[in-house]
Amino acid sequence: MPVERTVVERAMRAKEASRVLAEASAEKRGEALVRAADLLAKRQSKVMRANAVDLEGAQRKGLSSAMVDRLTITDKRLAEMAQGLREVAEQPDPIGRVIDEWTRPNGLRISKVRVPLGVVGIIYESRPNVTVDAAGLCLKSGNAALLRGGSEAINSNLALAAVMQEACEDAGLPTSCVEMIPVTDREAVYVMARLDRYLSLIVPRGGEELIRAVAEVATVPVIKHHRGLCHVYIDATCDVPMAVKLVHNAKCQRPGVCNAVETLLVHRANAEALKAVLADLLAAGVEVRGDETVQAASNQVKPATEKDWDTEYLDLILSVRVVDSLDEALGHIAQYSSGLSEAIITDNEANTERFLREVDSACVYANASTRFTDGGQFGLGAEIGISTDKFHARGPMGAGELTSYKYVLRGEGHVRE
Amino acid sequence: MPVERTVVERAMRAKEASRVLAEASAEKRGEALVRAADLLAKRQSKVMRANAVDLEGAQRKGLSSAMVDRLTITDKRLAEMAQGLREVAEQPDPIGRVIDEWTRPNGLRISKVRVPLGVVGIIYESRPNVTVDAAGLCLKSGNAALLRGGSEAINSNLALAAVMQEACEDAGLPTSCVEMIPVTDREAVYVMARLDRYLSLIVPRGGEELIRAVAEVATVPVIKHHRGLCHVYIDATCDVPMAVKLVHNAKCQRPGVCNAVETLLVHRANAEALKAVLADLLAAGVEVRGDETVQAASNQVKPATEKDWDTEYLDLILSVRVVDSLDEALGHIAQYSSGLSEAIITDNEANTERFLREVDSACVYANASTRFTDGGQFGLGAEIGISTDKFHARGPMGAGELTSYKYVLRGEGHVRE
Repeated sequence: MPVERTVVERAMRAKEASRVLAEASAEKRGEALVRAADLLAKRQSKVMRANAVDLEGAQRKGLSSAMVDRLTITDKRLAEMAQGLREVAEQPDPIGRVIDEWTRPNGLRISKVRVPLGVVGIIYESRPNVTVDAAGLCLKSGNAALLRGGSEAINSNLALAAVMQEACEDAGLPTSCVEMIPVTDREAVYVMARLDRYLSLIVPRGGEELIRAVAEVATVPVIKHHRGLCHVYIDATCDVPMAVKLVHNAKCQRPGVCNAVETLLVHRANAEALKAVLADLLAAGVEVRGDETVQAASNQVKPATEKDWDTEYLDLILSVRVVDSLDEALGHIAQYSSGLSEAIITDNEANTERFLREVDSACVYANASTRFTDGGQFGLGAEIGISTDKFHARGPMGAGELTSYKYVLRGEGHVRE
Repeated sequence: MPVERTVVERAMRAKEASRVLAEASAEKRGEALVRAADLLAKRQSKVMRANAVDLEGAQRKGLSSAMVDRLTITDKRLAEMAQGLREVAEQPDPIGRVIDEWTRPNGLRISKVRVPLGVVGIIYESRPNVTVDAAGLCLKSGNAALLRGGSEAINSNLALAAVMQEACEDAGLPTSCVEMIPVTDREAVYVMARLDRYLSLIVPRGGEELIRAVAEVATVPVIKHHRGLCHVYIDATCDVPMAVKLVHNAKCQRPGVCNAVETLLVHRANAEALKAVLADLLAAGVEVRGDETVQAASNQVKPATEKDWDTEYLDLILSVRVVDSLDEALGHIAQYSSGLSEAIITDNEANTERFLREVDSACVYANASTRFTDGGQFGLGAEIGISTDKFHARGPMGAGELTSYKYVLRGEGHVRE
């Protein structure tokens, strides 16, 4: 069957299921989540067998050990998927909530009520847990999920999607509330991107190249997460040990992720903080690339070039620049930030407020690590992704961000004059 | 200068201005609106001269009288534009509002704060008042406006945009908060649609063809208003005189607009309402196209074909169908509605709630005319458009719908474990 027909067929089924799902009670949707968590344990051997097939394929293709690691489902990871579903189930239900209501002078009553989007498409790469996480958040928010994972994880994904479908059926919901596209050609992605007739949203989770490719051709709205070029700015005065601790955490705790810091800006007046932070980072094995002032502070600092300010290392590398003022720091951030997370470390209240107001990023921090930009850390239960867009949703997206609203108007024979 | 360069240059200027505007106080933005309202009166002769040039051009090109009417700026219309600006100025300010806030178990404080989108592109056709209305809503919401109006109104639009710019300057804001694209080639629209680097959103206001053409090529998010195929359903029991009044208003008060009703569904058990409504509509000169039962009710009813259920007449024509149940009505609406506005007329509470819940439209009404789907009628002050999308905004869009949010996080040395 040609790729297009397969994709369209699944999308149509998901659309149909989404109509039923939109009317399902919070209890029913919650039940599907809890049943899915239980079933993940019951179907463990089946899931593991499917995963073994993928892992063999990965060995044959000679995938990197990092890739194989991402692909591997362990007992612990399966238990984490189940736990994630239970946590999502326990979150407050977003659907049917009255966001706002008012009565017009003519007596017409208007309420703005949360509703599901419809069908959400998720395009992802090699992590099979996304199948469960994404389907779970979609069910929570009353949306059908149309999933398209990477080719190297196809057997694992199909097995996990089958578990989610079985749970839907057990809860009295259509199995097509979760649809997995069984073909892994890139073409499937492009077909999905143009199915605005059936899909309300596409969330691509993966590298910048994938996201740009999808956004380029899409007629379906796409939530983009371009990259995380995050900055920490150390102000002229601050609690120096706190600065050391925060920068260390933002850079070293998990350098390969989007909310790790990539560029540190330090006010020229705060030589003490610069010195202490550099000593800590260098001791931790971080490669520091600095401007001339930073280089002068330590002979282990390498020179930074213009390209460094624009680079997301995703590694134990940090570019460091000394600035003459908060203004200069704000200017640097406005020029180079990817708009994800920026932090100020300061004991100056006016500077805090100015930084938090003027930095145009999804998450702006005062005296905290940028590493908190994450649905779980925000308390959203889980996340479908993190948006660097401003449209519809920004920052970590939970079930609430997978909703729309409608206006409900109640009259007693109201006509427009 | 080639079209692309002109458009990009204006977009860049607007982007730069948007940064200043995002930091401007509510008072300053409000002042710009009030000054613009005053200036519209002061610059009246200049605006009228520009409009006269457009009207001469329209005569030369032999535009229809409807087009010429839309193009014409009268004293009254100019006063209405000014009044609209004053009303928008008086609305509560959407920017900086804390939408939500909570504290995490670790003490990290999170608040979700309304911020402007950045630059909003508005593409419209022949009504010059859109220049003022759209620029006003953008200023209110802290966004720069990049405007591209129709060729037949270019002189009027440039004159009105100059007034808005003068008002910005008088209020201490950059003139580029309002940028009018001076070229009217269609190419300018396609260039705008792909300027995701500078634009956060495009609102196309015009025919379905224009909107589809923009959405097809856009990489900038586009708020779509496809069409308004609105339904009214008369239930098995209802207040019959109220039904007559509501259907009359929904069809006849202004048939050429998107929120007018196009299809009436009547429960078979309510022959009394069908008869009374038909008598009223036929007396009002409405052409009624009905199924066999409707035809049997009056010899003035013409037969409806399948195509009628899918037609937005925008005229004094109504398709009427008799249904056997609420289920059948909901099915018809799910199949044919454009998702804008649907109404039920009933005295049955359970049916009311089911209809309001199950109909998946931007605005769902009980015992009120569909004609209220309008920013002004909703009390939003004015509207930038009406969305039939579910993404980001749905239904009438005021200044609040031209915003995004950011997360502000305050810690005391919080690091992620």
